[in-house]
Amino acid sequence: MAENLRIAVIGTGRMGSDHIKRLTHTIAGADVTGVVDIDAGRATAAAALAGDHAKVWNDPHAALASGEYDAFVLTTPGMLHYDVLMDALDKRVPIFCEKPLTADAATAREIVDAEAALGQRLIQVGFMRRFDAGYQRLRGWFEDGSLGAALMLHCRHRNPTSPPNFTDALMIYDSVVHEIDGVRYFTGEEITEITVRRGRASRGAGGQLSDPQQILMRTESDVLVDVEIFVNAAFGYQVHTEAVFEQGVVDIGGDEGAYVRTAGRWGGAVTPGFEQRFAAAFDTEFQGWVNTLRAGRAPDGPSAWDGYAAAACCEAGVAAQDSGETVAVTLGDKPALYR
Amino acid sequence: MAENLRIAVIGTGRMGSDHIKRLTHTIAGADVTGVVDIDAGRATAAAALAGDHAKVWNDPHAALASGEYDAFVLTTPGMLHYDVLMDALDKRVPIFCEKPLTADAATAREIVDAEAALGQRLIQVGFMRRFDAGYQRLRGWFEDGSLGAALMLHCRHRNPTSPPNFTDALMIYDSVVHEIDGVRYFTGEEITEITVRRGRASRGAGGQLSDPQQILMRTESDVLVDVEIFVNAAFGYQVHTEAVFEQGVVDIGGDEGAYVRTAGRWGGAVTPGFEQRFAAAFDTEFQGWVNTLRAGRAPDGPSAWDGYAAAACCEAGVAAQDSGETVAVTLGDKPALYR
Amino acid sequence: MAENLRIAVIGTGRMGSDHIKRLTHTIAGADVTGVVDIDAGRATAAAALAGDHAKVWNDPHAALASGEYDAFVLTTPGMLHYDVLMDALDKRVPIFCEKPLTADAATAREIVDAEAALGQRLIQVGFMRRFDAGYQRLRGWFEDGSLGAALMLHCRHRNPTSPPNFTDALMIYDSVVHEIDGVRYFTGEEITEITVRRGRASRGAGGQLSDPQQILMRTESDVLVDVEIFVNAAFGYQVHTEAVFEQGVVDIGGDEGAYVRTAGRWGGAVTPGFEQRFAAAFDTEFQGWVNTLRAGRAPDGPSAWDGYAAAACCEAGVAAQDSGETVAVTLGDKPALYR
Amino acid sequence: MAENLRIAVIGTGRMGSDHIKRLTHTIAGADVTGVVDIDAGRATAAAALAGDHAKVWNDPHAALASGEYDAFVLTTPGMLHYDVLMDALDKRVPIFCEKPLTADAATAREIVDAEAALGQRLIQVGFMRRFDAGYQRLRGWFEDGSLGAALMLHCRHRNPTSPPNFTDALMIYDSVVHEIDGVRYFTGEEITEITVRRGRASRGAGGQLSDPQQILMRTESDVLVDVEIFVNAAFGYQVHTEAVFEQGVVDIGGDEGAYVRTAGRWGGAVTPGFEQRFAAAFDTEFQGWVNTLRAGRAPDGPSAWDGYAAAACCEAGVAAQDSGETVAVTLGDKPALYR
Repeated sequence: MAENLRIAVIGTGRMGSDHIKRLTHTIAGADVTGVVDIDAGRATAAAALAGDHAKVWNDPHAALASGEYDAFVLTTPGMLHYDVLMDALDKRVPIFCEKPLTADAATAREIVDAEAALGQRLIQVGFMRRFDAGYQRLRGWFEDGSLGAALMLHCRHRNPTSPPNFTDALMIYDSVVHEIDGVRYFTGEEITEITVRRGRASRGAGGQLSDPQQILMRTESDVLVDVEIFVNAAFGYQVHTEAVFEQGVVDIGGDEGAYVRTAGRWGGAVTPGFEQRFAAAFDTEFQGWVNTLRAGRAPDGPSAWDGYAAAACCEAGVAAQDSGETVAVTLGDKPALYR
Repeated sequence: MAENLRIAVIGTGRMGSDHIKRLTHTIAGADVTGVVDIDAGRATAAAALAGDHAKVWNDPHAALASGEYDAFVLTTPGMLHYDVLMDALDKRVPIFCEKPLTADAATAREIVDAEAALGQRLIQVGFMRRFDAGYQRLRGWFEDGSLGAALMLHCRHRNPTSPPNFTDALMIYDSVVHEIDGVRYFTGEEITEITVRRGRASRGAGGQLSDPQQILMRTESDVLVDVEIFVNAAFGYQVHTEAVFEQGVVDIGGDEGAYVRTAGRWGGAVTPGFEQRFAAAFDTEFQGWVNTLRAGRAPDGPSAWDGYAAAACCEAGVAAQDSGETVAVTLGDKPALYR
Repeated sequence: MAENLRIAVIGTGRMGSDHIKRLTHTIAGADVTGVVDIDAGRATAAAALAGDHAKVWNDPHAALASGEYDAFVLTTPGMLHYDVLMDALDKRVPIFCEKPLTADAATAREIVDAEAALGQRLIQVGFMRRFDAGYQRLRGWFEDGSLGAALMLHCRHRNPTSPPNFTDALMIYDSVVHEIDGVRYFTGEEITEITVRRGRASRGAGGQLSDPQQILMRTESDVLVDVEIFVNAAFGYQVHTEAVFEQGVVDIGGDEGAYVRTAGRWGGAVTPGFEQRFAAAFDTEFQGWVNTLRAGRAPDGPSAWDGYAAAACCEAGVAAQDSGETVAVTLGDKPALYR
Repeated sequence: MAENLRIAVIGTGRMGSDHIKRLTHTIAGADVTGVVDIDAGRATAAAALAGDHAKVWNDPHAALASGEYDAFVLTTPGMLHYDVLMDALDKRVPIFCEKPLTADAATAREIVDAEAALGQRLIQVGFMRRFDAGYQRLRGWFEDGSLGAALMLHCRHRNPTSPPNFTDALMIYDSVVHEIDGVRYFTGEEITEITVRRGRASRGAGGQLSDPQQILMRTESDVLVDVEIFVNAAFGYQVHTEAVFEQGVVDIGGDEGAYVRTAGRWGGAVTPGFEQRFAAAFDTEFQGWVNTLRAGRAPDGPSAWDGYAAAACCEAGVAAQDSGETVAVTLGDKPALYR
């Protein structure tokens, strides 16, 4: 067996800290031996989460250049991704990049083109739902064709509350982006157009958001998609997907867990948040990535192309929000590396 | 089509009044044209429920002798059933008898023998669960053999609270009697032995009852049956039956109805009582009985034999409660009329 | 109690025959004493379903003029409704009219205006889903406000197969019309606009239909509605409605019935068709109508206005199918009689 | 962070090999650096599963004496456990012992007494269900008392088929043992008596077994337990537990996963076996054990006492099978170490 993978985590906010703990206590074959943050205090605190192994850096480019790491995990805000990713490609080191790939579709396309020019996959994007057992099972029905062709996808994405200063655009970039990737993952097709419908807003959204909204999409083979995005759904967290095929209908994301009858009611507890709902998916995602790298193979999870396509769809979605019209999504040629 | 059936209802307590309303407002082809109760005020009030048609009697034997009725419904307490049933057999008029058939197995056997001597079925016993769609569907699996032979039956009978002055014996006579009939209905077999286990009692039972209890039975072909009887289950009403076959398992009585997600929970409302759970079964039972009689046929619902067999099992069940031992059930020969 | 209601059924096709059987064998307080059909042989056969009571007519206007009936049930094709309804209003007799009210929105509006001019409700329209226990329970959440305001409605209407010669327009007039009425019933609001999206068609639709389709609607208070209409869904019949409120989400129409585990699968049987799914609703609808008339009251079920509003929405829906655009629905003033 | 734990796995059959893969590829902080099997070929093959790290031994006592390992995992057949466990206690090394603890209750008690005499917990027993999320959630209701006191436990343990040469006694030792430990885990009480009921046997059991059977137990506070053990249930694997409390009822182990409607059915796939059902539990169990040892703490999972109590219950269960009588379970004093 190869030695443990030496990993540096860039960005030590909530997501970065979670990943440090995950890599240290849950994932076999990896050690967090570096921690990068511009805030030295936060970096030191994060290093403690990894035990004694982790060296503290405040410049990601220095860490990238050091030669001390087998791979990197990037969790800083999206607008800081571009430079780090370009440097990682330049140094030819594998990097796991939390979504979004970059701040916009144009720069995301540049990353795609740069990686394609290298002819080597180094970047994996953190669309963790692809590692959820339910997502994988649903994809199985798309792939095996046993229920005939897919015709429609009904998606529900409900959060208990939205963070302060959340905006309509963030509803697309932060939340719907997962459904966008899900549609691409299930169907294996690109999304060709997006429309957004706004209706009555929940008073729970505090006057700030038009919440919920309905996002309508279409794929290359004319699968119709509707997404309910509701980020102040109050009752808890829920991601539900219903796929309509010619011969049947498949649902994933139904309520599970202990079933209780008391006080005149039957039922159970709703999952409080994505951390609980997708805990196993996060673990599976990282374990798979670590195993792939330790085996000397290129990453085979969501690619830079997937990150770019999602960014392009999000931009079209925000344009559709603004205009009230249907907006086409155009991606340009897909480099051979991603086919 | 024949004229409407003229029915007299004997006994106008809660069950009698419910049946008057049912026959008047829900059942096609029947009129309640007589009402019998020893309490004249109660009888008059009950007659009003039937509109202007109903004549008031205070002696059931006078009503039986009057020749004014096509059929009778008997809902007085069980200890008053024997004389009325014997008189109805003597007059050869159809009579629908709410359970129990009579006060004990010995007198029930006398009714069976009297009806068998007549060679004509006149009595139908009110085991209404046989008319529940779920019960009928489960019986289908026993009959068609598509899942192989039946091996075990797990039964749950839960009431929210027990009435005042309820006793351990009434748990058998009033509640378990429905499970006893259900086992006989599903399997088409007689019950051969009964054991009762008492464990920790719920404080909700008020110190008065050993509640819940577990009733263990065995049928002629050695199907093992266990019944949880819990008459202070607090959360609501539930009748659940799980049948284990060689090739599969079938459940009926699961929770149904609108599905709600709110306040951190998913689920729905529990049925509050048997009236709601078995409302359709009561209607189906009476409509079938009325249709049969209007068509000039003998009743084909639960027979006097079914009432007798249930009574014999209940007596064995109470003996098993008292002794802590397994008690055999012996029924004697089954008259040809009931085969 | 009043005498049984004397009813004549106009039209004796499948739906008419079903209603004759229902009124004869299931509904208390009604006799089918007249049967009307232009085809004498079919009328005679239908009369036999009602026993000896029913007189045969071949002209509905003669039956309406005879004075022999307390009420009528109209089940002929929709294009024949207008004349009969106008005559019934003229004669001031109650008439139960299966959907659609008339052949188009303009003539439906004339019926509304004529009834409003009379100042008396005589017409009830056969939107039977309003009598389904699940529909009524879901409406309860809209009315009591315990989950806050309604925001979205997701509707699924799936049939196993479509009849021969079915068309895209009939998908609206025959199937979506029930969802249109459902939205109006749940929200208590009118529908203000309709859009139709077509995507990939199922090969099960035989090249004839664009099936499934997605119908998007909006109500007066901006509740967003999406309907999946899929009339060749292959697996069986399903009507599912999910209502999104500010504080929670409610589903009705989930799968029910016996729960089986066998051959590596858990689950149960899908309802085969609307007759099974809404059997109890048909009975409740007619029993309520009969009870109302016997009590000397005007019908309080779905009104001519409800029939007209549905017709107007269907016309807008077909226009939306044809144009690919969002089409506004305008109803004009609502007469005081229907408020 | 401490160095990785060096572990030797004793016994390299199916369970041993699974654990080697698990410790190598799934568990953080552990390396399998030794493999012990009397069969040299099998040992070498198993060592390959662990990569290059693992040294091969054929005598467990030599490995225990070598000082090269921080901890051991014991997966040989139960009759070989006693000597290895005694040696491990003698050497004071932590050892994870797959069930059963030893071949019988008497020798299990000797292990308990030896460990108690040391005054130090070194042994953890592989009752992996305690690490299942559902089991832990159900235990929560026993601990927090929010539903009142526990009254009854209904347990179902169904396997698709039994291995060749399976016996009635093995149904207890191999399968019911998990339910025995579950009852002790949920209630925190010892089991005081056991009865076994045999009924009609499934033909799927091949004439060899009386399958299914019903195992009845009672705990110290008189909680009544019934277990259906059915090892040829044909349809798949299922472990279902229903706990009846004073104020409500809780179920765990219901069917989960993608929900499909096709070919007239709704439902999903049954779990095929315990490996799928308890995959996460096995991982959680080992990760917890490794984390505890790396932190320098004594193991806090199922103890030698738990292994001994289960063995005593199994012996009583087999005696109850043989006699048809209720058999008391007596454990003797519980050493302070385990309280």
